[in-house]
Amino acid sequence: MIPKKINLAEKYGKLKAGDYAMGIVAKMNNYEIKVVRFKGDFVWHSHPDTDETFIILEGTMLMSFRDGVVEVKAGEMIVVPKGVEHKPSSVGGYKSLLIEPEDVPNTGGVQSGMAIQKGEWV
Amino acid sequence: MIPKKINLAEKYGKLKAGDYAMGIVAKMNNYEIKVVRFKGDFVWHSHPDTDETFIILEGTMLMSFRDGVVEVKAGEMIVVPKGVEHKPSSVGGYKSLLIEPEDVPNTGGVQSGMAIQKGEWV
Repeated sequence: MIPKKINLAEKYGKLKAGDYAMGIVAKMNNYEIKVVRFKGDFVWHSHPDTDETFIILEGTMLMSFRDGVVEVKAGEMIVVPKGVEHKPSSVGGYKSLLIEPEDVPNTGGVQSGMAIQKGEWV
Repeated sequence: MIPKKINLAEKYGKLKAGDYAMGIVAKMNNYEIKVVRFKGDFVWHSHPDTDETFIILEGTMLMSFRDGVVEVKAGEMIVVPKGVEHKPSSVGGYKSLLIEPEDVPNTGGVQSGMAIQKGEWV
């Protein structure tokens, strides 16, 4: 069987509407690669067991840490180390790839209306 | 310490010249994220222990498998499953992100002038 390619624009076209949407597009070993669309202010959280990679495709993400803010624009990426508190936010919105092991809770277990219990494929 | 963002264009500017260049730009747990620039015909090989993710940033990659070829263009990606023989090639050249566990040999151990023993940071 020939592996299938994934077209990211096509996957974004299938995401649900709203300021926050996320869908799994691929698995690599036990890691998930997800497309994310986000606008607004996320919740402070951390992931005790894993690093987390954001690759910005469109727009600008402000990634807040307890000791400073990093502006990550299209064509840029950032790896949030495990255990480090962070909070993504964006005024104009961004699209990013998000890469991390499967079944990592998006809010690190923090209760929030934005918490997603189980990622869905798109 | 505030994590640093990575600007991909800046990293590409630091790659050595030639049809094939690769540099590690980030670590996520025990995975490496690399920038690759490639033009030409790679060698047939496989990676017995891991999947491998290519995210195409510019240009077009033809990924050959023993039973077919997949054209992967900018904005598209493909995950090559572990153990599956593959051969990237490109007439016009491509730039891609390459994501896989650290210290995976680029030719899967196949002897070639393109073999890189140990990836270098850029």
